[in-house]
Amino acid sequence: MAKDLQISFLLDFYGEMLTEKQREMITLYYNDDLSLAEIAEDQGITRQGVRDAIKRAEQQLTEMEACLGLARRFREMRDGLSQICDETLKIAAFNRQFVLSKEIEESVSRIIETAQRLNES
Amino acid sequence: MAKDLQISFLLDFYGEMLTEKQREMITLYYNDDLSLAEIAEDQGITRQGVRDAIKRAEQQLTEMEACLGLARRFREMRDGLSQICDETLKIAAFNRQFVLSKEIEESVSRIIETAQRLNES
Repeated sequence: MAKDLQISFLLDFYGEMLTEKQREMITLYYNDDLSLAEIAEDQGITRQGVRDAIKRAEQQLTEMEACLGLARRFREMRDGLSQICDETLKIAAFNRQFVLSKEIEESVSRIIETAQRLNES
Repeated sequence: MAKDLQISFLLDFYGEMLTEKQREMITLYYNDDLSLAEIAEDQGITRQGVRDAIKRAEQQLTEMEACLGLARRFREMRDGLSQICDETLKIAAFNRQFVLSKEIEESVSRIIETAQRLNES
Protein backbone atom coordinates (compact mmCIF):
# COMPACT_ATOMS: atom_id res chain seq x y z
CA MET A 1 0.00 0.00 0.00
CA ALA A 2 1.26 3.49 -0.87
CA LYS A 3 2.00 5.80 2.04
CA ASP A 4 -0.37 8.75 2.07
CA LEU A 5 1.33 11.92 3.35
CA GLN A 6 -2.04 13.32 4.40
CA ILE A 7 -2.30 10.50 7.00
CA SER A 8 0.81 11.68 8.79
CA PHE A 9 -0.73 15.16 8.95
CA LEU A 10 -4.07 13.86 10.26
CA LEU A 11 -2.23 11.76 12.85
CA ASP A 12 -0.96 14.98 14.40
CA PHE A 13 -4.54 16.22 14.87
CA TYR A 14 -6.58 13.15 15.68
CA GLY A 15 -4.00 10.58 16.79
CA GLU A 16 -5.18 10.76 20.40
CA MET A 17 -8.56 9.35 19.36
CA LEU A 18 -6.99 6.05 18.25
CA THR A 19 -6.24 3.19 20.63
CA GLU A 20 -2.68 3.10 21.97
CA LYS A 21 -1.82 0.03 19.84
CA GLN A 22 -3.23 1.59 16.66
CA ARG A 23 -1.39 4.83 17.29
CA GLU A 24 1.85 2.93 17.93
CA MET A 25 1.66 0.97 14.68
CA ILE A 26 0.55 3.83 12.45
CA THR A 27 3.26 6.08 13.93
CA LEU A 28 5.94 3.45 13.27
CA TYR A 29 4.66 3.14 9.71
CA TYR A 30 4.14 6.81 8.81
CA ASN A 31 6.45 8.80 11.04
CA ASP A 32 9.30 6.34 11.63
CA ASP A 33 9.04 4.84 8.13
CA LEU A 34 9.20 1.18 9.21
CA SER A 35 7.90 -1.50 6.80
CA LEU A 36 4.83 -3.65 7.56
CA ALA A 37 7.17 -6.65 8.07
CA GLU A 38 9.35 -4.72 10.53
CA ILE A 39 6.31 -3.57 12.52
CA ALA A 40 4.93 -7.13 12.51
CA GLU A 41 8.16 -8.41 14.01
CA ASP A 42 8.27 -5.58 16.54
CA GLN A 43 4.65 -6.16 17.64
CA GLY A 44 4.73 -9.97 17.48
CA ILE A 45 1.76 -10.20 15.07
CA THR A 46 1.40 -11.09 11.36
CA ARG A 47 2.14 -8.66 8.56
CA GLN A 48 -1.52 -8.91 7.52
CA GLY A 49 -2.57 -8.06 11.08
CA VAL A 50 -0.46 -4.91 11.01
CA ARG A 51 -1.82 -4.00 7.59
CA ASP A 52 -5.43 -4.35 8.76
CA ALA A 53 -4.81 -2.34 11.94
CA ILE A 54 -3.17 0.48 9.98
CA LYS A 55 -5.96 0.49 7.37
CA ARG A 56 -8.57 0.77 10.15
CA ALA A 57 -6.66 3.60 11.83
CA GLU A 58 -6.30 5.43 8.48
CA GLN A 59 -10.03 5.11 7.94
CA GLN A 60 -10.79 6.51 11.40
CA LEU A 61 -8.46 9.48 10.90
CA THR A 62 -9.98 10.19 7.48
CA GLU A 63 -13.51 9.98 8.89
CA MET A 64 -12.63 12.34 11.75
CA GLU A 65 -11.35 14.89 9.23
CA ALA A 66 -14.39 14.46 6.97
CA CYS A 67 -16.54 15.15 10.03
CA LEU A 68 -14.61 17.98 11.71
CA GLY A 69 -12.35 19.46 8.99
CA LEU A 70 -9.95 20.84 11.61
CA ALA A 71 -6.77 19.79 9.77
CA ARG A 72 -7.98 21.73 6.72
CA ARG A 73 -8.69 24.79 8.89
CA PHE A 74 -5.19 24.56 10.36
CA ARG A 75 -3.60 24.22 6.95
CA GLU A 76 -5.40 27.39 5.83
CA MET A 77 -4.04 29.16 8.92
CA ARG A 78 -0.49 28.06 8.06
CA ASP A 79 -0.86 29.17 4.43
CA GLY A 80 -2.18 32.55 5.58
CA LEU A 81 0.69 32.98 8.05
CA SER A 82 3.13 32.26 5.26
CA GLN A 83 1.52 35.00 3.12
CA ILE A 84 1.73 37.40 6.08
CA CYS A 85 5.44 36.62 6.46
CA ASP A 86 6.06 37.27 2.76
CA GLU A 87 4.40 40.70 2.96
CA THR A 88 6.22 41.54 6.17
CA LEU A 89 9.55 40.72 4.55
CA LYS A 90 8.67 43.09 1.70
CA ILE A 91 8.12 45.86 4.26
CA ALA A 92 11.45 44.94 5.90
CA ALA A 93 13.29 45.08 2.56
CA PHE A 94 11.72 48.44 1.65
CA ASN A 95 12.50 49.81 5.10
CA ARG A 96 16.15 48.71 4.95
CA GLN A 97 16.61 50.19 1.49
CA PHE A 98 14.75 53.50 1.73
CA VAL A 99 13.42 54.37 5.18
CA LEU A 100 15.76 52.96 7.84
CA SER A 101 13.14 53.26 10.58
CA LYS A 102 13.91 51.49 13.85
CA GLU A 103 10.16 51.46 14.68
CA ILE A 104 9.26 49.61 11.46
CA GLU A 105 12.17 47.19 11.91
CA GLU A 106 11.03 46.34 15.45
CA SER A 107 7.42 45.78 14.41
CA VAL A 108 8.61 43.58 11.53
CA SER A 109 10.66 41.47 13.96
CA ARG A 110 7.70 41.01 16.30
CA ILE A 111 5.40 40.00 13.43
CA ILE A 112 7.91 37.43 12.10
CA GLU A 113 8.54 36.04 15.61
CA THR A 114 4.80 35.67 16.26
CA ALA A 115 4.19 34.01 12.88
CA GLN A 116 7.06 31.57 13.45
CA ARG A 117 5.85 30.70 16.93
CA LEU A 118 2.34 30.00 15.58
CA ASN A 119 3.71 27.88 12.75
CA GLU A 120 5.53 25.68 15.25
CA SER A 121 2.60 25.33 17.69
CA MET B 1 -26.91 25.21 35.68
CA ALA B 2 -24.66 28.12 34.67
CA LYS B 3 -23.92 28.53 30.97
CA ASP B 4 -20.27 27.92 30.23
CA LEU B 5 -19.01 30.12 27.38
CA GLN B 6 -16.27 27.61 26.64
CA ILE B 7 -18.95 25.09 25.61
CA SER B 8 -20.19 27.33 22.83
CA PHE B 9 -16.61 27.58 21.58
CA LEU B 10 -16.07 23.80 21.75
CA LEU B 11 -19.36 23.24 19.93
CA ASP B 12 -17.89 25.02 16.91
CA PHE B 13 -15.00 22.54 16.81
CA TYR B 14 -16.46 19.23 17.87
CA GLY B 15 -20.21 19.68 17.38
CA GLU B 16 -20.25 17.31 14.41
CA MET B 17 -19.21 14.45 16.70
CA LEU B 18 -22.46 14.70 18.70
CA THR B 19 -25.71 13.04 17.64
CA GLU B 20 -28.09 15.27 15.70
CA LYS B 21 -30.50 15.49 18.65
CA GLN B 22 -27.73 16.37 21.11
CA ARG B 23 -26.36 19.01 18.76
CA GLU B 24 -29.82 20.47 18.27
CA MET B 25 -30.53 20.81 22.00
CA ILE B 26 -27.12 22.14 23.00
CA THR B 27 -27.21 24.66 20.13
CA LEU B 28 -30.65 25.91 21.21
CA TYR B 29 -29.34 26.25 24.75
CA TYR B 30 -25.93 27.82 24.11
CA ASN B 31 -26.18 29.60 20.77
CA ASP B 32 -29.88 30.53 20.64
CA ASP B 33 -30.11 31.14 24.40
CA LEU B 34 -33.34 29.20 24.97
CA SER B 35 -34.16 27.98 28.51
CA LEU B 36 -34.31 24.29 29.45
CA ALA B 37 -38.11 24.61 29.74
CA GLU B 38 -38.41 26.15 26.27
CA ILE B 39 -36.24 23.41 24.73
CA ALA B 40 -38.28 20.74 26.57
CA GLU B 41 -41.47 22.12 25.06
CA ASP B 42 -39.88 22.39 21.61
CA GLN B 43 -38.56 18.81 21.73
CA GLY B 44 -41.57 17.27 23.47
CA ILE B 45 -39.52 15.82 26.35
CA THR B 46 -39.14 16.69 30.05
CA ARG B 47 -36.99 19.54 31.32
CA GLN B 48 -34.88 16.95 33.17
CA GLY B 49 -34.45 14.99 29.94
CA VAL B 50 -33.13 18.09 28.18
CA ARG B 51 -30.84 18.85 31.12
CA ASP B 52 -29.37 15.33 31.06
CA ALA B 53 -28.89 15.38 27.28
CA ILE B 54 -27.10 18.75 27.43
CA LYS B 55 -24.91 17.61 30.35
CA ARG B 56 -23.85 14.50 28.40
CA ALA B 57 -23.10 16.57 25.29
CA GLU B 58 -21.07 19.06 27.36
CA GLN B 59 -19.08 16.19 28.83
CA GLN B 60 -18.35 14.75 25.38
CA LEU B 61 -17.19 18.12 24.04
CA THR B 62 -14.98 18.66 27.09
CA GLU B 63 -13.49 15.19 26.75
CA MET B 64 -12.77 15.71 23.05
CA GLU B 65 -10.91 18.92 23.88
CA ALA B 66 -8.99 17.28 26.75
CA CYS B 67 -7.95 14.58 24.27
CA LEU B 68 -7.18 16.66 21.16
CA GLY B 69 -6.67 20.25 22.39
CA LEU B 70 -7.53 21.66 18.96
CA ALA B 71 -9.73 24.47 20.29
CA ARG B 72 -6.80 25.65 22.43
CA ARG B 73 -4.48 25.53 19.40
CA PHE B 74 -6.98 27.59 17.40
CA ARG B 75 -7.36 30.12 20.20
CA GLU B 76 -3.58 30.56 20.29
CA MET B 77 -3.64 31.13 16.51
CA ARG B 78 -6.32 33.81 16.92
CA ASP B 79 -4.41 35.52 19.74
CA GLY B 80 -1.25 35.50 17.62
CA LEU B 81 -3.09 36.95 14.62
CA SER B 82 -4.42 39.71 16.82
CA GLN B 83 -0.85 40.55 17.95
CA ILE B 84 0.26 40.55 14.30
CA CYS B 85 -2.55 42.99 13.44
CA ASP B 86 -1.55 45.31 16.29
CA GLU B 87 2.06 45.45 15.08
CA THR B 88 0.95 45.93 11.47
CA LEU B 89 -1.23 48.86 12.49
CA LYS B 90 1.80 50.42 14.23
CA ILE B 91 3.72 50.17 10.94
CA ALA B 92 0.73 51.71 9.13
CA ALA B 93 0.55 54.62 11.59
CA PHE B 94 4.29 55.26 11.36
CA ASN B 95 4.15 55.08 7.58
CA ARG B 96 1.25 57.52 7.33
CA GLN B 97 2.93 59.98 9.68
CA PHE B 98 6.55 59.91 8.49
CA VAL B 99 7.21 57.82 5.39
CA LEU B 100 4.16 57.92 3.10
CA SER B 101 5.28 54.86 1.15
CA LYS B 102 2.69 53.32 -1.18
CA GLU B 103 4.61 50.00 -1.02
CA ILE B 104 4.40 49.79 2.78
CA GLU B 105 0.73 50.81 2.72
CA GLU B 106 -0.09 48.05 0.22
CA SER B 107 1.75 45.37 2.20
CA VAL B 108 0.01 46.52 5.37
CA SER B 109 -3.38 46.18 3.64
CA ARG B 110 -2.60 42.66 2.43
CA ILE B 111 -1.44 41.58 5.91
CA ILE B 112 -4.59 42.97 7.56
CA GLU B 113 -6.83 41.38 4.90
CA THR B 114 -5.17 37.99 5.34
CA ALA B 115 -5.36 38.16 9.14
CA GLN B 116 -9.05 39.12 9.01
CA ARG B 117 -9.84 36.30 6.57
CA LEU B 118 -8.10 33.79 8.85
CA ASN B 119 -9.92 35.11 11.91
CA GLU B 120 -13.26 34.53 10.22
CA SER B 121 -12.46 31.05 8.88
